Amino acid sequence: MQTDYSIYCEKLKKIADIQYSMALLSWDQEVYMPAKGAEFRAGQLSTLAGIAHEMSVDQELGSLLDRLLVDTSLSEKEKRNVKESHKNYHIQKKYSTDFVVALNKTISASYQAWHKARTENNFALFAPVLEKLIELKKQECEILGYEKHPYDAMLEQYEPGARVADLDVLFDQVKAKLVPFVKKIAMAKQNDSDFLFKHFEKNTQWDFGIFLLQQMQYDFEAGRQDISAHPFTTSFSPSDVRVTTRINEYDLREMIWGCIHEGGHALYEQGLDAADYGLPSAEAISLGIHESQSRLWENNVGRSLSYWKANYGKLQQAFPEQLKEVSLDRFYKAINLVEPSLIRTSADELTYHFHIMIRYEIEKELISGSLSVYDLPSYWNHKYKDYMNLDVPSDEQGVLQDIHWSHGSFGYFPTYSLGSFYAAQFFAKAKEQIKDLDLQLQMGELKSLLLWLRENIHQYGKFYQASELCEKICGTKIDFEYFFNYVENKYKQIYEYADNE
Amino acid sequence: MQTDYSIYCEKLKKIADIQYSMALLSWDQEVYMPAKGAEFRAGQLSTLAGIAHEMSVDQELGSLLDRLLVDTSLSEKEKRNVKESHKNYHIQKKYSTDFVVALNKTISASYQAWHKARTENNFALFAPVLEKLIELKKQECEILGYEKHPYDAMLEQYEPGARVADLDVLFDQVKAKLVPFVKKIAMAKQNDSDFLFKHFEKNTQWDFGIFLLQQMQYDFEAGRQDISAHPFTTSFSPSDVRVTTRINEYDLREMIWGCIHEGGHALYEQGLDAADYGLPSAEAISLGIHESQSRLWENNVGRSLSYWKANYGKLQQAFPEQLKEVSLDRFYKAINLVEPSLIRTSADELTYHFHIMIRYEIEKELISGSLSVYDLPSYWNHKYKDYMNLDVPSDEQGVLQDIHWSHGSFGYFPTYSLGSFYAAQFFAKAKEQIKDLDLQLQMGELKSLLLWLRENIHQYGKFYQASELCEKICGTKIDFEYFFNYVENKYKQIYEYADNE
Repeated sequence: MQTDYSIYCEKLKKIADIQYSMALLSWDQEVYMPAKGAEFRAGQLSTLAGIAHEMSVDQELGSLLDRLLVDTSLSEKEKRNVKESHKNYHIQKKYSTDFVVALNKTISASYQAWHKARTENNFALFAPVLEKLIELKKQECEILGYEKHPYDAMLEQYEPGARVADLDVLFDQVKAKLVPFVKKIAMAKQNDSDFLFKHFEKNTQWDFGIFLLQQMQYDFEAGRQDISAHPFTTSFSPSDVRVTTRINEYDLREMIWGCIHEGGHALYEQGLDAADYGLPSAEAISLGIHESQSRLWENNVGRSLSYWKANYGKLQQAFPEQLKEVSLDRFYKAINLVEPSLIRTSADELTYHFHIMIRYEIEKELISGSLSVYDLPSYWNHKYKDYMNLDVPSDEQGVLQDIHWSHGSFGYFPTYSLGSFYAAQFFAKAKEQIKDLDLQLQMGELKSLLLWLRENIHQYGKFYQASELCEKICGTKIDFEYFFNYVENKYKQIYEYADNE
Repeated sequence: MQTDYSIYCEKLKKIADIQYSMALLSWDQEVYMPAKGAEFRAGQLSTLAGIAHEMSVDQELGSLLDRLLVDTSLSEKEKRNVKESHKNYHIQKKYSTDFVVALNKTISASYQAWHKARTENNFALFAPVLEKLIELKKQECEILGYEKHPYDAMLEQYEPGARVADLDVLFDQVKAKLVPFVKKIAMAKQNDSDFLFKHFEKNTQWDFGIFLLQQMQYDFEAGRQDISAHPFTTSFSPSDVRVTTRINEYDLREMIWGCIHEGGHALYEQGLDAADYGLPSAEAISLGIHESQSRLWENNVGRSLSYWKANYGKLQQAFPEQLKEVSLDRFYKAINLVEPSLIRTSADELTYHFHIMIRYEIEKELISGSLSVYDLPSYWNHKYKDYMNLDVPSDEQGVLQDIHWSHGSFGYFPTYSLGSFYAAQFFAKAKEQIKDLDLQLQMGELKSLLLWLRENIHQYGKFYQASELCEKICGTKIDFEYFFNYVENKYKQIYEYADNE
């Protein structure tokens, strides 16, 4: 006789099977699908989405969850799974199949339009379908419900518990502290970084990226790396977690920190509990926590002096012509150059948050309806002038640069900043608890750090909410001070040292 | 108001969406999936298969098909689609869930046992589960029904309309004509082919294969080529048809004729009517007709002197070291070397049919019960001695070489021979109807031939049955004489010419 809980597990695993199949169809779409395959692929994704949705709102599942919610014989983990699934069930119930199908169709058309618009640097090609998509997202806010700001409903999808009210406080601190700090840096003597933009041959870059992933303990038997236009990580189970990268032969930074960043995401997914496949306890907590993993590896580890003490020699060996005359110190300063720039994905770890702040402010207005899609490019350009004193020369380098909106992902961007702030907080705790962590980094020994993350974060899946987990690990809620302390210590040193040269 | 027919189309398209999604999961499994991904991938495929099956036997679809079957307002094409779907619906309905579960379980065990048995060259490891599988296949014949021979029910799955009575006639002709013809060839002076087994660098082979596919008019915007252990073609719509190849650096033949063969399959799929996606009118007729397309390109075109008049210069340029001293004439003879051999997949285009005949004879006896699984190896070896005068040194090179039986695919092998025979018949007609086809081949102009295939075969999908199509194109049913004439003309010339050297 099957228990309710085991029937529930079976049902969730089947839904996961479909969702992970969709993830493969999407991965293929970004990585290998030939151009003409797009139309039928969109239909296939939409059919699978419809089926997954139907199964997610199945009456039987609902009754099962109602029974399980009051089942006192369940373990603590089982209770958390049921609670999470029960919540999701009722969120899913709010969507009609028609709405889901319409949304997926519009997203698919929107992605194609964005791609064409970006290629041709012509926002007008994207605007009408984006407008349609935003109308649907506004409807979605109403469907999902919210207490204060409609945008809270968008945030909740990616970062359960996050609210406009809290994010406004965080970004106020960004404005109050980070903006003046970056201005101070701008007045200091700038370090040179020209050597990062010499010609770096593609295959050698690829090999170096693979080496970095291996060093991070990314399991290539449970994953692979491919090339795509926009790097991403995707998962079809904890045993098949894939990353993509892109290689710019005239900017070494794109591949290196792209690999480390996606590697950080992938280590989280590979560290989830395969035995609980399909259940909340084998799912990432939130995008913010996911991003904390990628940022921790990318910045706190991957842009540290210690990390490059271990790896710079290997990089010089790979590119002797380009780097033989460049000292580690010069390299370290160059990779931590702070400079306002147009493209989010290649921004330094400080001005990055200005890019996010801009998107956050724009999204709030698009969703609340105070900004029209047709005013978007000029509004975007105005914000870049305002916060970073930059003139945006083209929409391709401006409002068309990110894939997110074309995917209907509103409320997603803020999780990037949350990720950095969590990362700084977690990394401070890891340093406290792993006595010789810095020495290990200097030797390219990354295993203890990974085990610390596995033990403190990965293994739990969704057992804790983001804020609970943060309190469990650090004893406090998310706190911008950790990030600002990290930034202040690191960059004061880099730029004061430069002042004294 | 939607018509019954348009509802029917929608339902079939959704089923196709799931089946094509499964095809992508399988493609990825063979081509890119990391090792540890296998377990969850199997579960994902099985979940999708279950859903596709449920939708295929849905009561509502059944009633819809019953109504449509007597709907006189439908066009001829619509009627054919409905008739075909109605037939399939009732075939699917015959299977009980218990039987499907038992069959799938046994197939899974059987595949594993076969893999182990082949690796360890120990047939005894495979025999018990194969025996069980054959018992289930016998039951399946009874479930499906047949008029004369139970094996007819197996044939019907892959080649609708094919019967033992007809295949016996075909293979009697193979025995009466092809066996003595090959013996005659064996007595003639054999041409050398050593140069085909020099070292041919992988990337250069790859590029040459891509060139051949482009020349065939394979649309790379609606497909792509990748590497896999066993070459195959798969389709996710007529707009995304993918081929794989394998490259043996010490046998140039594997890549070249692998590419052309899979390219032939792919051109068929790319030529199906995308507007009818999901309907029988956008599906291949049968495995035999599918194989006729791959064989026509592989052999009638790809092993002809005219084709190599166009392409040999390019091949020599690609591999100057290995081929500069080899004349076109020597090359042509080498690639058409006829020699009885143990392994089906690397057989020449004549002795290939002895391999199929042996499997056909064995399958009939296994299904009718006149041959025991335990006598299989000695029976196999006896047949290879009888038809090809070969001693089989081990079961790994004998009865264990093919994957098909372990997958429960009985009735599949004969479609390979049917494909060659259809190919010869179609190609004879194409030559008759395209006046200067031979001249075109000599110039590497393959477009007219493709258009002829598109017009006469591809565009119709399943509108005609195999035998109807053959009569429509050629005015006669399948006739071994076309194949034998092709063979006689080609090989008399090759080997008589050798006699006179």
